[in-house]
Amino acid sequence: MTRFDPTPADKFTFGLWTVGSVGRDPFGEPTRPPLDPAYSVRKLAELGVWGVNFHDNDLVPIDATAAERDRIVRAFRAALEETGLVVPMATTNLFTDPVFKDGAFTSADARVRAYALQKTMRAMDLGAELGARTYVFWGGREGSEVDAGMKTVDSLARFREALNFLAEYSEDQGYGYRFALEPKPNEPRGDLYLPNVGAMLGFIATLEHPERFGVNPEFAHETMAGLSFPHAVAQAIDAGKLFHIDLNDQKMNRFDQDLRFGAENPKAAFFTVKLLEDSGYDGPRHFDAHALRTEDEEGVWAFARGCMRTYLILREKARQFDQDSEIQACLQAYHVRDEALEAQMRRYSPEGARALKERAFDRAGLGARGLGLEQLDQLLIDLLLGVR
Amino acid sequence: MTRFDPTPADKFTFGLWTVGSVGRDPFGEPTRPPLDPAYSVRKLAELGVWGVNFHDNDLVPIDATAAERDRIVRAFRAALEETGLVVPMATTNLFTDPVFKDGAFTSADARVRAYALQKTMRAMDLGAELGARTYVFWGGREGSEVDAGMKTVDSLARFREALNFLAEYSEDQGYGYRFALEPKPNEPRGDLYLPNVGAMLGFIATLEHPERFGVNPEFAHETMAGLSFPHAVAQAIDAGKLFHIDLNDQKMNRFDQDLRFGAENPKAAFFTVKLLEDSGYDGPRHFDAHALRTEDEEGVWAFARGCMRTYLILREKARQFDQDSEIQACLQAYHVRDEALEAQMRRYSPEGARALKERAFDRAGLGARGLGLEQLDQLLIDLLLGVR
Amino acid sequence: MTRFDPTPADKFTFGLWTVGSVGRDPFGEPTRPPLDPAYSVRKLAELGVWGVNFHDNDLVPIDATAAERDRIVRAFRAALEETGLVVPMATTNLFTDPVFKDGAFTSADARVRAYALQKTMRAMDLGAELGARTYVFWGGREGSEVDAGMKTVDSLARFREALNFLAEYSEDQGYGYRFALEPKPNEPRGDLYLPNVGAMLGFIATLEHPERFGVNPEFAHETMAGLSFPHAVAQAIDAGKLFHIDLNDQKMNRFDQDLRFGAENPKAAFFTVKLLEDSGYDGPRHFDAHALRTEDEEGVWAFARGCMRTYLILREKARQFDQDSEIQACLQAYHVRDEALEAQMRRYSPEGARALKERAFDRAGLGARGLGLEQLDQLLIDLLLGVR
Amino acid sequence: MTRFDPTPADKFTFGLWTVGSVGRDPFGEPTRPPLDPAYSVRKLAELGVWGVNFHDNDLVPIDATAAERDRIVRAFRAALEETGLVVPMATTNLFTDPVFKDGAFTSADARVRAYALQKTMRAMDLGAELGARTYVFWGGREGSEVDAGMKTVDSLARFREALNFLAEYSEDQGYGYRFALEPKPNEPRGDLYLPNVGAMLGFIATLEHPERFGVNPEFAHETMAGLSFPHAVAQAIDAGKLFHIDLNDQKMNRFDQDLRFGAENPKAAFFTVKLLEDSGYDGPRHFDAHALRTEDEEGVWAFARGCMRTYLILREKARQFDQDSEIQACLQAYHVRDEALEAQMRRYSPEGARALKERAFDRAGLGARGLGLEQLDQLLIDLLLGVR
Repeated sequence: MTRFDPTPADKFTFGLWTVGSVGRDPFGEPTRPPLDPAYSVRKLAELGVWGVNFHDNDLVPIDATAAERDRIVRAFRAALEETGLVVPMATTNLFTDPVFKDGAFTSADARVRAYALQKTMRAMDLGAELGARTYVFWGGREGSEVDAGMKTVDSLARFREALNFLAEYSEDQGYGYRFALEPKPNEPRGDLYLPNVGAMLGFIATLEHPERFGVNPEFAHETMAGLSFPHAVAQAIDAGKLFHIDLNDQKMNRFDQDLRFGAENPKAAFFTVKLLEDSGYDGPRHFDAHALRTEDEEGVWAFARGCMRTYLILREKARQFDQDSEIQACLQAYHVRDEALEAQMRRYSPEGARALKERAFDRAGLGARGLGLEQLDQLLIDLLLGVR
Repeated sequence: MTRFDPTPADKFTFGLWTVGSVGRDPFGEPTRPPLDPAYSVRKLAELGVWGVNFHDNDLVPIDATAAERDRIVRAFRAALEETGLVVPMATTNLFTDPVFKDGAFTSADARVRAYALQKTMRAMDLGAELGARTYVFWGGREGSEVDAGMKTVDSLARFREALNFLAEYSEDQGYGYRFALEPKPNEPRGDLYLPNVGAMLGFIATLEHPERFGVNPEFAHETMAGLSFPHAVAQAIDAGKLFHIDLNDQKMNRFDQDLRFGAENPKAAFFTVKLLEDSGYDGPRHFDAHALRTEDEEGVWAFARGCMRTYLILREKARQFDQDSEIQACLQAYHVRDEALEAQMRRYSPEGARALKERAFDRAGLGARGLGLEQLDQLLIDLLLGVR
Repeated sequence: MTRFDPTPADKFTFGLWTVGSVGRDPFGEPTRPPLDPAYSVRKLAELGVWGVNFHDNDLVPIDATAAERDRIVRAFRAALEETGLVVPMATTNLFTDPVFKDGAFTSADARVRAYALQKTMRAMDLGAELGARTYVFWGGREGSEVDAGMKTVDSLARFREALNFLAEYSEDQGYGYRFALEPKPNEPRGDLYLPNVGAMLGFIATLEHPERFGVNPEFAHETMAGLSFPHAVAQAIDAGKLFHIDLNDQKMNRFDQDLRFGAENPKAAFFTVKLLEDSGYDGPRHFDAHALRTEDEEGVWAFARGCMRTYLILREKARQFDQDSEIQACLQAYHVRDEALEAQMRRYSPEGARALKERAFDRAGLGARGLGLEQLDQLLIDLLLGVR
Repeated sequence: MTRFDPTPADKFTFGLWTVGSVGRDPFGEPTRPPLDPAYSVRKLAELGVWGVNFHDNDLVPIDATAAERDRIVRAFRAALEETGLVVPMATTNLFTDPVFKDGAFTSADARVRAYALQKTMRAMDLGAELGARTYVFWGGREGSEVDAGMKTVDSLARFREALNFLAEYSEDQGYGYRFALEPKPNEPRGDLYLPNVGAMLGFIATLEHPERFGVNPEFAHETMAGLSFPHAVAQAIDAGKLFHIDLNDQKMNRFDQDLRFGAENPKAAFFTVKLLEDSGYDGPRHFDAHALRTEDEEGVWAFARGCMRTYLILREKARQFDQDSEIQACLQAYHVRDEALEAQMRRYSPEGARALKERAFDRAGLGARGLGLEQLDQLLIDLLLGVR
């Protein structure tokens, strides 16, 4: 066992749908057979994983009878108990079935919205039964291609109603869920509502109980909009709203790739890891990705190991960054403090404002000062490439 | 005068920097001489414009003496009085001068942050002096290329401090400004903090006086991130935060083009106009764009006329949409209401939840229903192309 | 019948896979049942369509027996004869089956490459049997996510070998196909080789018989890379290589949407139609798109009608553009001719070069001249919006 | 001196405009003073650079007198001779002056086109005088925002005429230039003609003397269109057309960033270096980038050193890749050869075709085989991160 082999203490989690992906895509049929959930649990445990997450229908088919459901859940729970894996998070599949083709909580059809509520309440029951404390909402179909349908503003109100309702349900049932909203800019819909972490944070402020809601940022989803994932995570941390995180990778501004963590953008992955580690975030490090369609089952486990390995490599580099004296000297020079000025700015007073307004600044001098960022960034590249 | 010629009642505004753009770009020198602000005011008034906006340094050069400032403001005010144009909005230039090369309110240098506060207070004085009621913040340099500078989270805190401070200043001085935050995803910085409308809404929720803050969505800025501008505007409306709006146009996911309103995406422009008109938004319709660099002054006024003309054409089409019986029939069929169900969903009750959980839904039937969106969208295309 | 109702003289074609799309996507199951090919032919004929295209497996399942194949082809041919529809183009499905998961002609496995050749020869037989004169190659899986596989350069050589081979086969069999290469930047692969029209043109120059090869530009595919589709079509026309065209629509830089023609970018659609009509292109106007997943069969035909209707509306506007005296006056002013100078530039001579080198130009004057493009573009917007 | 310190044998070059960039951008004034060309030459020589390139006006201002020109060239040549730096490449500035605001060789104004020819002939003289053997064409303004100007197809013909003319001029003068065409998708124009490497290769095939023309791929430019830079370079190599290369970095689908080589996409940078080294390309490794606007002169040299250092680090890793037995074993398994089949495919014969058509393939078996690409890619990530 090396220093980059994971243990449950690292709190790595995978979704059943990630390692269980059969490799279907819009232009191709499955290349791998499905995996039995209990089998996946045992394999993940062998790899050092801490927990496993699921959509309701990852575990229980949408048309299962009550007896089938019970049998499936029993087998799954047995695998959890046997391995010690936990289920920290659960969620609802509100996108695969044709009934959701125009949205779930935001469908223009009241009956579909009602069915979505029903399905989610039942999925919350299932999650709670298996110990989940965080409940994720990814509105995979909450969006539109045809805005002429004239439901854009109404959809936000309806989405809010649904979340308020389900938060009450959670309390009523004593589940005590923390809800994590997961945004995505597009795909499968032309434009999804509330398309990124910031939009979700703005929306949470309009809910009845904002304190129960946070976000589940996903690396690939922000990147699909060409936005900086580390910046989005930082905003969530700043707002106290980082309730969960989905790690994977993706090239900017293209279809949803869900690549192995760190496979495309190691620098952004580094800053993500550093933010998580520095911020005291103690939730799951969840990988929402899947093996390439070129792979068989062996490739699936290589993929899963790779996600965790890269995280651990980057975590080590994050610590090294903090201990590198040359890097720290650059940072020291870059951050210019002035305690008196900072105090004056921190809290408004008429006198402080007047003083600031009259103060003389050396505008030209401040503008001419070199900030040393090329040097600092190259030191980071050296660190990432392992030549420091 | 035709029905597409604007009048001040239409509340169209331009920034001094828009018609005054000299056509410089990263690879080329100016192609037009600067325009005197008072001259621009008179020309805009001739075109039927309602108001004019400015950054402090659009009007008063950054190194003007007090006497120069007074002379310039006097001449400008005279032009306003002569023409009846108003100044509904003002803002600060926190991006042109080298002092802001690494940000203003989020600079790593406390002195730069303090200078940015000073400059903004003075610019707020100038805006108030000329009657502005809305104050816009566009953080043109608040971002980074080198996240190794390790200020991402701190920058959000500092930006918040600055906004809280300036909101107090506004009250203290009796200005009563409403603040409108304008996001942009990137350019001139690699990644700008708080990159879109949603992110700003999320950030506002963390301010001391969120009620004084709203957003200033810009068509081009959301579009640069491949996000739907109408959806962003809808979220701002839903949140009661649409304090101002910047209309222009842009191809997706490329450099900031600031094209004539409606020039690239007439469909999204239509939905934007429809949202504004339907929502009761009564603020300025501000065009934050500029004539192509290929144009001389005549082209500048053609550009300005075109922005307004296209708005008015689309406004007429928005009304036509509401009166078109075939379109309305499609909408009628698309929106399936069920009062009883909707009441049950609107507000949580344990009984309602139980009833919903037990209700039988015709999942297959709901999934098979055709929604008529291709037909509806084609009717809209016909309407836009003027063949209905 | 109105002036925007199509007739076979308009040469509109659809692929069987377009109207036959069952509405599956990466996150959802089919929402519509499959259509029988012969049924599609009859429905398309009713709508005024000229021809129908197919991949081998759109018509004949990959595992059909010879007897099944014959029965299917017979039924299909009967529908063609009954309706008068033609089959101008055929192509091979080299992407759906798992065997092609890492490419067909560019697979790292020689056996897969050989099988792809076999499948294509058979599909060429099928196409020829049904009268196709153009054969399209879309290399749906010719690309990679993992360049560490070290086959990038080899893949180009292998793709070339395959095309050279198949061109010989076509001659040998007396099919006389014209081959149209269809590029796409990504999806389903991370990066597809030869990602756009230009790249295909460059590649054709390296083939043994470049004269037999042209391109099949697709609106959505160029747009996915944020490239101008009209510019790509223009390059194909300039090179004499526009052998086929795929019309649809798409938002820039996102997953492959295959929207109804003209639904998103009516201005680019207008320039596309104008180029086709002006250039004397007399091939099929093929729609490679599908109805939204929200639609039932009725919506599918609404979609198909909409594609053709919008083309015809834009064709009328293209003619109107040429007859609009104000627009033509703008163009007249914009294009500055100088016969003597142009002759000098057209063909090199030492004297001409010397004369040009010594000539005096009024650089400042030429730079200051306004080009009237804002005005011209607004006239076009007026034309598109139907208010001229 | 360490193994990552460059020497002239590494053939690194910079443009005068790169280290000389004053840090101006569309929203901000210069942050650095200009550098004297001769000074830059001496500084670059100290850093181990091999050569320096320039646009005509990087060296000689557009309005310099003949005497000024001579003085400047003399001083520059002295610096070259003193340091041993060479000038392998030269080019023309056809974008900064307002005269080129609507294009140079593709302007709608014949006089502008003629002036562009004149300016380029003179710049070719200057380049030849200083020893340049490669002449680059970057058509910075050859494009449009307003396609209603109706010059798209004509522009390609005019661009071709200009290149044919200038190729003759080069022969006529005995310069023997190899011409390298440099594409870019957009910025400063809305859409630039011939937007990527592939498009240029396609265009070259239409020239009178294609053999004199190749491409100058730029990392940032392909990346701006979301295209794979290594794939573009591979196509150029395959076509024998890699005449020059511009190395830098960039986030996908956004404004032209021109970042330090390797700063954003180390994986794509690795594949680029590997392609260059493996292909036997022996031309300059040119860095077309500039220091961030936050930097002073010290930062400029840090930037230049960083570009070269990262190249050398990646070159070492490329060699390590070839020597890593685990990686090579993965490659061995991935590439399935079959000499007999490959021979049959390589060259068409009726018998070979018949044999191929009749051969039995194990389609299911080939589709089920795992390709090991997740494992291989993780090994590469380990290599890049320096933990192998």
